[in-house]
Amino acid sequence: MSDKIVAHIEANQKKYVDRLAEAVGIPSVSGDASYRHHVFEMADWLANEFTKVGAQVTKRPLGKQEIQGETIDLPPALLGQIGNDPAKKTILVYGHFDVQPALKSDGWDSEPFKLVHDEATGRLYGRGSTDDKGPILGWLHVLEAHKELGLDLPVNLKFVFEGMEESGSEGLEELVVSEKNGFLAGVDAVCISDNYWLGTTKPCITHGLRGCAYFYLTVSGPARDLHSGVFGGVVHEPMTDLISIMSRLVTPEGKILIPGINEQVAPLTDAEREVYNVMDFSLEDINSATGSKTTISDDKVSMLMSRMRYPSLSLHGIEGAFAEPGAKTVIPAKVTGKFSIRMVPDMDGQKVIDAVKAYVEDEFKKLGSRNTIEFKHDSPGLPWVADPNVSAQAYQHWNYEAAFRATEKVYGVRPDLTREGGSIPITLTFADTLNCNVLLLPMGRSDDGAHSTNEKIDLSNYIKGTQLLGTYLYEVASA
Amino acid sequence: MSDKIVAHIEANQKKYVDRLAEAVGIPSVSGDASYRHHVFEMADWLANEFTKVGAQVTKRPLGKQEIQGETIDLPPALLGQIGNDPAKKTILVYGHFDVQPALKSDGWDSEPFKLVHDEATGRLYGRGSTDDKGPILGWLHVLEAHKELGLDLPVNLKFVFEGMEESGSEGLEELVVSEKNGFLAGVDAVCISDNYWLGTTKPCITHGLRGCAYFYLTVSGPARDLHSGVFGGVVHEPMTDLISIMSRLVTPEGKILIPGINEQVAPLTDAEREVYNVMDFSLEDINSATGSKTTISDDKVSMLMSRMRYPSLSLHGIEGAFAEPGAKTVIPAKVTGKFSIRMVPDMDGQKVIDAVKAYVEDEFKKLGSRNTIEFKHDSPGLPWVADPNVSAQAYQHWNYEAAFRATEKVYGVRPDLTREGGSIPITLTFADTLNCNVLLLPMGRSDDGAHSTNEKIDLSNYIKGTQLLGTYLYEVASA
Repeated sequence: MSDKIVAHIEANQKKYVDRLAEAVGIPSVSGDASYRHHVFEMADWLANEFTKVGAQVTKRPLGKQEIQGETIDLPPALLGQIGNDPAKKTILVYGHFDVQPALKSDGWDSEPFKLVHDEATGRLYGRGSTDDKGPILGWLHVLEAHKELGLDLPVNLKFVFEGMEESGSEGLEELVVSEKNGFLAGVDAVCISDNYWLGTTKPCITHGLRGCAYFYLTVSGPARDLHSGVFGGVVHEPMTDLISIMSRLVTPEGKILIPGINEQVAPLTDAEREVYNVMDFSLEDINSATGSKTTISDDKVSMLMSRMRYPSLSLHGIEGAFAEPGAKTVIPAKVTGKFSIRMVPDMDGQKVIDAVKAYVEDEFKKLGSRNTIEFKHDSPGLPWVADPNVSAQAYQHWNYEAAFRATEKVYGVRPDLTREGGSIPITLTFADTLNCNVLLLPMGRSDDGAHSTNEKIDLSNYIKGTQLLGTYLYEVASA
Repeated sequence: MSDKIVAHIEANQKKYVDRLAEAVGIPSVSGDASYRHHVFEMADWLANEFTKVGAQVTKRPLGKQEIQGETIDLPPALLGQIGNDPAKKTILVYGHFDVQPALKSDGWDSEPFKLVHDEATGRLYGRGSTDDKGPILGWLHVLEAHKELGLDLPVNLKFVFEGMEESGSEGLEELVVSEKNGFLAGVDAVCISDNYWLGTTKPCITHGLRGCAYFYLTVSGPARDLHSGVFGGVVHEPMTDLISIMSRLVTPEGKILIPGINEQVAPLTDAEREVYNVMDFSLEDINSATGSKTTISDDKVSMLMSRMRYPSLSLHGIEGAFAEPGAKTVIPAKVTGKFSIRMVPDMDGQKVIDAVKAYVEDEFKKLGSRNTIEFKHDSPGLPWVADPNVSAQAYQHWNYEAAFRATEKVYGVRPDLTREGGSIPITLTFADTLNCNVLLLPMGRSDDGAHSTNEKIDLSNYIKGTQLLGTYLYEVASA
């Protein structure tokens, strides 16, 4: 990318911050029906902004959704395109403009939907600042810089921005599949900026994601909630049964106790181990991100492998039991325990589901309870790796090479090649459906607090990240 | 009691039902600050009704309370008196005019605060119908009958009605202690109608209650909720630790696993076993009450002893974890597990607390987690028995004899002498502070669904129960 564009981006920082404030100011929470109109508002705002910088933008309806007992419209996906030169490569960019819920009372230091620029630390606080409005605006500003400088893009750019990523990306997979030979025809590679550096100082490029399978165990017995004075000791209590089963899923050290899960994990090679060894990551990074000293291991490689290449099981909560503050002595009649398993290669969705179901039902039988258990699961999000046989220095696809070179140019350092512990199911859909290379090129840092309170993006990441996205397009063009 | 009074009560059924509808129509939920004004409204309504039938009623303020972050006034206790004849015995009556929360959406078939008289079954449905507005109105109607028939009561009657029973009876114990030599001076015995028959056909008199100790286990670690993709497998998760500890408290068969609890239970004598043997109670009663077949044992004596004379431990829920419908993949940063232990003679409150604390902290250490656990408890409600050495036929205090004879006259059957699994802590306060005999004389049936959905009282229990309360006063007078 020319120094002129780099300088232009540098010079427009204030405008970019103001625009991020506008975007953060629209509380586009996808998981709450009462906020849905804001997700539509956000789609309109983005469509307008991208149109102004020269993109052809279509708002694509995705149908309807059942949420909180209501049937409401899904927010549209934005399909955009700029450039159509057969001599150029075509890059597809993905992002999402919906956000996680946030209330000041959750523990935020400021209003979550009002961007706060802390000049002392250079941080921009606000829901969506890093996940994923900042990165989307990065692409916008790359286009704007070209328009304002009167320059053509070095590639043809297409984008798909969705408004349901935080709520299961409803409708998106169908759209991608249906547009395979339509809008998405001719895509040479995909670039997604919706994850984070491994630490807080060194950029990375991400070539893998864990998948996620979500489970619901419902134990029921009595027809109604019971008085624990009258019935305590007399009946099998659903909570006692459920807690017993939930305690058999995973140890406090994170070991999954369900037979047939760990057996599916791809064996570790020496080459792969070396990848973790060289990564820029420290115990301090993770302690700073969690605000605690609660890692299971203090060993760097062990921590990285737990996050990137081994499955994990988290217990999220119980529906139907007493969850409010204070004391209540009722015996709940029906309780649903919820947990998820992060999946890695070579785990198979159906095999995982079968193993969990068999184990849970067996263990429940052992309880000898007269209550009943019901097992449910969501459709599992599978793990994704662009190439499982990577080593630190040897990922050779031109898409990755372009990202490496761009990062070196902008940050002066060769990025780590990482895998992410989280899940972005659409990544796998892009890879499989479009049959092309996909990479994740993060803008923010590990301590940005996506999904948490006081979400932020550092101004330097926001600005250099924008330069990175632009530079990446030039490196793709020359690859 | 004269046939005239019995007939008068019989003749006024419709008025009594209408009055119960009025009382149920005031949603006097004590556990929710936004309903507090209705508890005051209920106190006013009752004070007015009892004044109209000749009682001298005082509304006694009980100070303030912290609830849901607000400081609000506690509802007053109603202190009432009718008659002051030194030649007569003085009976103290207790009841409560607050109720448990109820929403139609909890699963009620009708609006909980609108009394529904199902003529086909003779049932009166509504929150508070049996717990405890029906019994309070029973006393009201005994007084009204005497006034309308121009008769004097056979005893001096005092009453204490509170509006915080469902929320820990805040302020009441202090009131009883402070009025020991004041308003409560001269009380010869106490009668409480705030529990239920053992089954659905045979009346009972209750001479014991289990106590209740309530515990809070808070496991915390990360400074904020964490993304389970990024941190799952890497950190010690508070939920995993908490569920593991909660699973070690009690078995699905109801066996308490905390050392030092079961050891405190008074040994069973042959005489006591015989009490359970003769009680009118069946598996069908309990299955009908729970709407299920989920008893741990099908043996009558075993079920009765589990409810009346052995401790039990119930897991109520988890605060801070995901409790709503749907899927959420967060790792909660801080979770509080809540459970209670029903206490029986000879369990000691402090010994129970010490045993739970020691066990929980020991077990937590075994986990090897880097999270921390915090142990809290409420002030325990102790168990009460009017006489632990009872046999079915040999409870000889005149207060109990009067209740036996009254029940035989009204129902034509000698009642069972039972203990209750639930807790009414003020019972023990009355017994110890006033140093006099206390009995529980229930009006409703085991399947009334107090604290549950579709709470009801049978019209026959409401009317015959009123006759019972009146007859009891006459039997006391002639004892």
